Amino acid sequence: MEFKINSKVLEKLLSKIIPAVPSRTPMPILENFLVEIKDGSLTVSATDLEISLRSTINIAADKNIKVVISARLLYDIIRSLDDSLVNFSVDEKGKINIITDKGVYSLSYSPSEDFPEIQSVSKEKEVIINGNDLKKAFDQTAFAMSKEDMRPAMTGTLVEFAKEGLRFVSTDGHRLVKYINKNFTTDVQEQYIIPERAISVIIKLLGDTDVKVYLSKTYASFIINDIEFITRLIGEKYPAYNSVIPLENENILLVNRLEILSAVKRMMLFSTSNSKQVKFSIGQNSLEVSAEDIDHGSNAKENIQCQYSGDAMDIGFNTTYVNDILSHLEGEEITFKLHSPTKAGIIEPVKKEENEDIMMLLMPVRINN
Amino acid sequence: MEFKINSKVLEKLLSKIIPAVPSRTPMPILENFLVEIKDGSLTVSATDLEISLRSTINIAADKNIKVVISARLLYDIIRSLDDSLVNFSVDEKGKINIITDKGVYSLSYSPSEDFPEIQSVSKEKEVIINGNDLKKAFDQTAFAMSKEDMRPAMTGTLVEFAKEGLRFVSTDGHRLVKYINKNFTTDVQEQYIIPERAISVIIKLLGDTDVKVYLSKTYASFIINDIEFITRLIGEKYPAYNSVIPLENENILLVNRLEILSAVKRMMLFSTSNSKQVKFSIGQNSLEVSAEDIDHGSNAKENIQCQYSGDAMDIGFNTTYVNDILSHLEGEEITFKLHSPTKAGIIEPVKKEENEDIMMLLMPVRINN
Repeated sequence: MEFKINSKVLEKLLSKIIPAVPSRTPMPILENFLVEIKDGSLTVSATDLEISLRSTINIAADKNIKVVISARLLYDIIRSLDDSLVNFSVDEKGKINIITDKGVYSLSYSPSEDFPEIQSVSKEKEVIINGNDLKKAFDQTAFAMSKEDMRPAMTGTLVEFAKEGLRFVSTDGHRLVKYINKNFTTDVQEQYIIPERAISVIIKLLGDTDVKVYLSKTYASFIINDIEFITRLIGEKYPAYNSVIPLENENILLVNRLEILSAVKRMMLFSTSNSKQVKFSIGQNSLEVSAEDIDHGSNAKENIQCQYSGDAMDIGFNTTYVNDILSHLEGEEITFKLHSPTKAGIIEPVKKEENEDIMMLLMPVRINN
Repeated sequence: MEFKINSKVLEKLLSKIIPAVPSRTPMPILENFLVEIKDGSLTVSATDLEISLRSTINIAADKNIKVVISARLLYDIIRSLDDSLVNFSVDEKGKINIITDKGVYSLSYSPSEDFPEIQSVSKEKEVIINGNDLKKAFDQTAFAMSKEDMRPAMTGTLVEFAKEGLRFVSTDGHRLVKYINKNFTTDVQEQYIIPERAISVIIKLLGDTDVKVYLSKTYASFIINDIEFITRLIGEKYPAYNSVIPLENENILLVNRLEILSAVKRMMLFSTSNSKQVKFSIGQNSLEVSAEDIDHGSNAKENIQCQYSGDAMDIGFNTTYVNDILSHLEGEEITFKLHSPTKAGIIEPVKKEENEDIMMLLMPVRINN
């Protein structure tokens, strides 16, 4: 059988599907694209068993086929071609010939039976979310997910439908981010946990277009333009995060975000050894941040302009975590809402965007002495 | 003692010296800058025992010191600072305090006795070479140096003073590049071999300014603006490369460089397995390049426009080596001068720049069958 397609059109299609191809896998079949031609439409899919990507375009073809082809090789060949109409000729002996006006490239295909079935998610219940809104929600929260498999729920991001809006929560037990998109309200109350790998892939697909989302208990499907992205959900109960968020942190430290961020970045140079901590020494309208690297005999301190009228205190934080939080927050002025050197602090922008709410929580660390 | 210096001036100085600091070394002292203040000038040096970098600027200082300071930490601190005048205060107890209007950063220094002496090269015999000319010569030849330590001379680039000009030669036994800068002529005939690491560092320092070069039997010194770059030379005899360059390759294949380069890049996708070879099948004004990956059951062939009127032949080359050569040559049209499928081929641009000559040699490989 034969079909024709423009090289750049096919390259664009494959470039969107290849992120689901695992780079290392004990199952070599997953290193392939599943390529199906059926009644004049070409569907390319890939999966790593956790996430899947699929896209379809119309082509003129005289027969139907369903085969698997080395994903990396096909993608590399197609993108090495000039912009031109390419002729595909599929024989019955396991060969696909790609014919251009420059030459002939022949590669093997295999039967599709062994390729795992890609989960389909019922399209009955549809949710529509703006692509940029979804991207922002993941961008702001994903960094705080846990990298440790001990508590699987925390290795993903919680997406929670609630009356006040669509909530996104990530935590690794040391820090927690809660982001609420108030544009999106619903009467149902439902929780889904999206795995880290799914978020890292979907973030690159999201943009101006609205996204159609379909959810089941175990899988979620996102339709973004002509792409369907399917991910397994983490089937665990998310920790009761609200109970750890302090309600009465009355000591309010007001600082310029970029100023303290730049100081914290310098403190990171002095907190490379085990402690990895920065000390905030806070007094009446005064803030000194300091760090010490005992192994290398180096230390640093800076005074930062601030407004503060609460209890004087010395409080320590993990320097990397403070840097993460200050880097991901937006806005010029931020507040640290503190209780005491052993209780969680809350970090928030002073001005929040209309229709959204964001809160970051950070546990202090015991100060070395 | 105290001295003051602008942070960005110091950052620029350190950024030029830090390439000589080894990233991994069994001698921790080499991870430091040697910092010397003497009679109002500040000299910063670094060495990995093979290459050294040194630069001096004038400063106002009341005393002389000579200490070693962690290179990475000092560089990272200085470049994290805003553009401002920075005060250095060196106490007698091993501490340097860096004081800005934001804060105080304190780091340890060590005495300089254990820091290896940086080789000095006699400045008696001076050679002046244009920086861009030197950069181009290294750019065109360095890729062909051997990566294997078996024959140390071939792990460097030969620089040869000769009547016809300044010759640069690299070879790994499979390919050879000879580049001649005819602007630079001399009556003496001398050979020096510059190690790979020196070339990779000096290439980034070279630019519009003339370079003063001083050579001894064992070391070379290059003065580039306010920087001195010193490298050990490879003290071996360079192989008699002229004897391997064929003089009578009468079969001349004329092709467009970018056209054959783009075909060879596609062939690389099909020559990933052990053979890594591309076959040139050459006939009367016809050239087919082809490659086959037996392991993956894939293959490719392309026809390329050419002019050829010699003996018809099939000749195989290592695909990566052909790609290297075609990528480093300049000019639109190139010739392959061939003798037979078992003898070295010569690849040259049809039009050469005035005042330079370049020749690349490539050994064929036995064609699989």
